[in-house]
Amino acid sequence: MAITDETSGTGVSRRGFLSRVGATGGAGAMFATMGALGLAPSAEAATRAPFQPPRASDFRLRGRGAAKVAVLGAGVAGLATAYELGKAGYDVTILEAQDRVGGRNRTLRGGDRLAEMDGATQRIGFGKGTYMNAGPARIAQWMTTMDYCRELGVPLEVFTNSNADAYLFNESAGMKAPVRWRTAKADMYGYISELLAKATDQGALDQRLTAVDKERLLSFLSGFGAIGSKADGFAYKGTDGRRGYSVNPGAADTEGTVLGSVPSLGDVFASGVGRYFSFEFGYSQAMLMFQPVGGMDAIPRALAEAVGQRKIRTGCAVSKITNLAGGVQIEYEQDGRTRTLAADYCVATLPPHVLAKIPHNLGANVQAALGTPVPVSTGKIGLEYRGRWWEDEERIYGGITNTDLDLSTIWYPSSGHHSERGLVVGYYNFGAAADTYARMAHADRLRRALDQGAKIHGDRYRKGLAASASIAWIRQPHIQGGWISWPSRGAEYALLNRPQGNVYFSGDWLSYEIAWQHGSFESARKVVTELHQRVLKS
Amino acid sequence: MAITDETSGTGVSRRGFLSRVGATGGAGAMFATMGALGLAPSAEAATRAPFQPPRASDFRLRGRGAAKVAVLGAGVAGLATAYELGKAGYDVTILEAQDRVGGRNRTLRGGDRLAEMDGATQRIGFGKGTYMNAGPARIAQWMTTMDYCRELGVPLEVFTNSNADAYLFNESAGMKAPVRWRTAKADMYGYISELLAKATDQGALDQRLTAVDKERLLSFLSGFGAIGSKADGFAYKGTDGRRGYSVNPGAADTEGTVLGSVPSLGDVFASGVGRYFSFEFGYSQAMLMFQPVGGMDAIPRALAEAVGQRKIRTGCAVSKITNLAGGVQIEYEQDGRTRTLAADYCVATLPPHVLAKIPHNLGANVQAALGTPVPVSTGKIGLEYRGRWWEDEERIYGGITNTDLDLSTIWYPSSGHHSERGLVVGYYNFGAAADTYARMAHADRLRRALDQGAKIHGDRYRKGLAASASIAWIRQPHIQGGWISWPSRGAEYALLNRPQGNVYFSGDWLSYEIAWQHGSFESARKVVTELHQRVLKS
Repeated sequence: MAITDETSGTGVSRRGFLSRVGATGGAGAMFATMGALGLAPSAEAATRAPFQPPRASDFRLRGRGAAKVAVLGAGVAGLATAYELGKAGYDVTILEAQDRVGGRNRTLRGGDRLAEMDGATQRIGFGKGTYMNAGPARIAQWMTTMDYCRELGVPLEVFTNSNADAYLFNESAGMKAPVRWRTAKADMYGYISELLAKATDQGALDQRLTAVDKERLLSFLSGFGAIGSKADGFAYKGTDGRRGYSVNPGAADTEGTVLGSVPSLGDVFASGVGRYFSFEFGYSQAMLMFQPVGGMDAIPRALAEAVGQRKIRTGCAVSKITNLAGGVQIEYEQDGRTRTLAADYCVATLPPHVLAKIPHNLGANVQAALGTPVPVSTGKIGLEYRGRWWEDEERIYGGITNTDLDLSTIWYPSSGHHSERGLVVGYYNFGAAADTYARMAHADRLRRALDQGAKIHGDRYRKGLAASASIAWIRQPHIQGGWISWPSRGAEYALLNRPQGNVYFSGDWLSYEIAWQHGSFESARKVVTELHQRVLKS
Repeated sequence: MAITDETSGTGVSRRGFLSRVGATGGAGAMFATMGALGLAPSAEAATRAPFQPPRASDFRLRGRGAAKVAVLGAGVAGLATAYELGKAGYDVTILEAQDRVGGRNRTLRGGDRLAEMDGATQRIGFGKGTYMNAGPARIAQWMTTMDYCRELGVPLEVFTNSNADAYLFNESAGMKAPVRWRTAKADMYGYISELLAKATDQGALDQRLTAVDKERLLSFLSGFGAIGSKADGFAYKGTDGRRGYSVNPGAADTEGTVLGSVPSLGDVFASGVGRYFSFEFGYSQAMLMFQPVGGMDAIPRALAEAVGQRKIRTGCAVSKITNLAGGVQIEYEQDGRTRTLAADYCVATLPPHVLAKIPHNLGANVQAALGTPVPVSTGKIGLEYRGRWWEDEERIYGGITNTDLDLSTIWYPSSGHHSERGLVVGYYNFGAAADTYARMAHADRLRRALDQGAKIHGDRYRKGLAASASIAWIRQPHIQGGWISWPSRGAEYALLNRPQGNVYFSGDWLSYEIAWQHGSFESARKVVTELHQRVLKS
C-alpha cells in the first residue's frame, strides 16, 4: 500500500521543486509556492485513493457470489468489518464473548452491571441521563470515526479537551494550589518571550537571524508574551488580563484586578506547568474535538443496527480457530456448550493478548507475533455529583485538569451545563497509576480519588456525591487492557497485517492510531478491501 | 465602589507578604505560598460582595413601597434592569423603539426583515433551523451572562472560538494559500524554541538564568517546540505530526505522511501568522466559550418573558427626557402620536450617540459626555450553504479562520455538524473594513465576500449557496453602531455613571467590557443596586 505520491505529473517531484524554490526565492517564496502548487492539506490528502466499500454490483457484474465471513469480536473493528462487508451482501456472522456489542467502546449508565475478572461487580447507580464513556471518549475532526458518525447519523457535539479555566497542579514541584491553564500559559509564554527578546536584541542570535527576522520576531514576542518594550528590558510583568482576574472587569469604575501575585521566572520554570502545553498541539488531541451526543456507544449501537442484530451472536466466546484449505472453522462456547461456525474467511478482531490464549493452527510465528504486543493499563472513575459545583463555584464549564498526582487528569463534562447533576471523571490514568487503582476494590478507588482530587478542588470535592463507578481495563474479561503497545512495529506487526491462510486480523492494534477508534476503522477498511479483492479474484 | 481588598485580617497586605516570601524563599516558594494563602482565583473573587437582587421583603420590612421606573431601551441592559427591579415589585415600563426586544442581541432567521437606515430591506431567506447571531455570538465562562443563562434556564453549548484545523491567511505577506492554525503554531513554536534553546545553551541569558533554570527551560522547549537535541543544534525540522498530515496515520504500514514542505524560519516570520496566536490567550476570548442553543436571542427572549410582555412597549421611540424635582417625564412617539410616561426614575440604556440626539434637560455637561464615545463600525454576513463542504471536504468542524483580507474572519458553525445545511459567517469585521461593506448594497457585499472567501476555500465557496444576509450595524436604526469606544474613560465616563437627578444611564458602554453582554449585565446590576439603595433610603 503506497503511503503517498510525491511525484507530480511532470515527472518532477514536488518536494524537490519546493526545495529549489526555497533556495532561490525571497522571504515568503516557499510559503507562497506551497499554496500555488496545491499542497494545502486537503489537496495533498486527495492524492490518496479513498476507501471504496464493497458493493453488491461488484459481484453482479462479475457473476460471482459473496463469501461467508466469521468476524470474531463485536468491538468497533469487528462491527465495522461486518458493516462494510454487508454492503456487498457478504454472509457475515459476528461472535462476541460479552453480552453486548462495542468492546472497549462502552458507556456506563445507571442500572448497568460492571463485572471485573476476579468477580467483583459494580451495579452502576448513576441517575437518569448521567453516563461515563469508560473507553474512548474523544474524536479528532480528521479521524475516520467522524465519517462513520456522518454515515450512520450519529449526532455529535464538542468534546472539551482543553479549557483555559481548568487547572494545572504539580504536587511534586511544591505547588500548594492549582493554577488555571490560562495563568500558567500567560506566565510561561511571558517569560520565554522576555528571554528570547533579550537574546535577540543583544545580538546573540545574529548568526541565525537577519535584521528583518529580528524585527518580526520582536514584534511577535511583544504580543505573544505581553511583554514590555525594549526600554523596559522586554520584561514580563504579568499585568495583562490574560493571567485572569481576581475581580472581573465590570461596570463603572470596576476596571478589574488582574490576578496576582506574579511568580518569578524561576518559580514558574520550577513549577513544571509548561510540560502540559504541548498536549494541545497533538494531531489527535488539538481542539476542536467531538463526542456523540448522549454517549460514545452510539457508534457501536448504530453499527450493530446497520449490521443487523441477527448477524451478531453475543455470549459466544471463541475457543478454537482452525484454518482449512477451503475456509475456516470456529469453535465457540455458548451457554456452556461448544458450537461450531464454518465460513470461507475469518476476521479476528480480539486483542492480540486475548487471541494468543485461543488455540489455533496458524503456526508458531503467528502465536509468537500475537504474544509480542504489551497490554497497557488504564482506568477511569466517574463521580456523579448532585450539583455542578465546578461550574457554579469554580467557573469551569468542561475541559481537563492535569496533575502529577496518580489521578493524572480530572475531566469536567462537555455538555449539560447548568443542569442539576453532572459527572466528573475523577481519574483517567495509565501505567503504574492505573495499576495502583486496578488493584483496589471500588470503594478504595473512590476514597483515594476523592483524597487526591480534594488537593485540586478542596473539600467540596467530597460533598454531594450521588454515585460513582470505576473501570480498570486490565481487569475487564475478554479485553484485559486499555490498549496495547508494540515494542517495535517489526516482523510480528507485518505478519499479523497479512492474512494467515483464510484468517485476517484487524483492530486498532494493527494501526498507527492505537487506542483510537480511528485505528479500528482504518484497520477494518484495510482488511475489508483486501478480503473483497481476494474474493473477487477467486 | 471598592475594586478589591488587598488587606488581610491581620493588617498585613497579602501582596506585601507574598513579595517578602518571594524575596527570601527558594524556587517554588512563591507558588506554594500563593496557594496556601488561599489566593487561588475563586478565593480572591470571594473577597468581593456578590450582587444582591432587590427583594420584595426589602420593602415589607421597612414599610415602604417600590417606585415606578421608566426603562429606555429593551436591549440586554434595559431588560436586565427591568428584570432585577421586578424581583422587588418595582413598577417598571420599558420603552423600545424597535418592534422587538434584544437591541444588538439579534438573531436573524428565515422570514425576518432586516431594514437599514436608508430604507434598504433584506427579507431573510434562511431555511428552517438556520440562524445567524448578528450581534453578540460568544460568552466566556467567567462572564455574568453565564449566570443569567443559568437563572433563566437558557440551555448552552460550546461556541467554537478556536480550531486547530481552521486557517490563517495573510495575503499581504505573499501567502498564496492558507495554512491551518495547527501548522502555523507548530512552525512558529518550533522556531522560537530552537532560537531560545540555542541562546540559552550558548550562555547568552546567563545573567537572567541559573543553571537549574536553564535545564528546566531547555526541557520545556524540547517539548514545546518539538525541536532536536543539543547534538542537532536544537533544530526545528517540522517532522512532528503536530504540523498535520498529508496522508493520515492509518492501518498496517500507513504510518502517515507529515505535511510538507516545512517553510524556513524567515518565511514563517515573514508570513505574519504568529500575530493571531495571542487572541486565544485573551481573558474574554480563550476557549472554552459558549452560546445559547438555537440562537443568542434566547437570552433577551427569556428576560422579556420574565419581565412580562405587558411591561414592554415596543415601537415606542423616546423623543424627550425631562428630569423633574420628584421624578421624570418621558415623551415618546408611538404610531405617529406623541405620548408621555411619568415615573419616579428613569434608566436610559440607549447607545450614548443615540441618546445625544434626544432632547433632555440634564444639562450641557451630560450632553457633552453623551457625545464623547465614538461609535465603532462592525458587520457580518451569513452564508447559508446547502451542504457542509467545510466539514465534508476540509475537515473543519467549527472555529474561526483569521485573515488580513477585509473579511477579517470566517466563522464555521459550532453545532449541527453533519446536518444538511449550515451557515458560515463570511465576514465579521470592524472599522474601515466594516465601513467598506456597510456602504454597499447587500448583493455587492455578498459578491465581495464570496470573492474574498474564495481565496481561502477556492471555488467551492461560490457554490451551493442557499441564502445570505448581511448586517452593517452603523446602518441599523436606533442603534447606529456595533459598540462605542471611549477616547479615554475620563470625567464624561464618570459623569454618566452617576445618576443625573432621577435619570440613570446603563449599558455595556458604561463598563469595562464594552461590546459584551457581560458589560450590559454588570452595568444594569450596578444601576439597580444604586437605585434600590436610594429608594430604600428615600
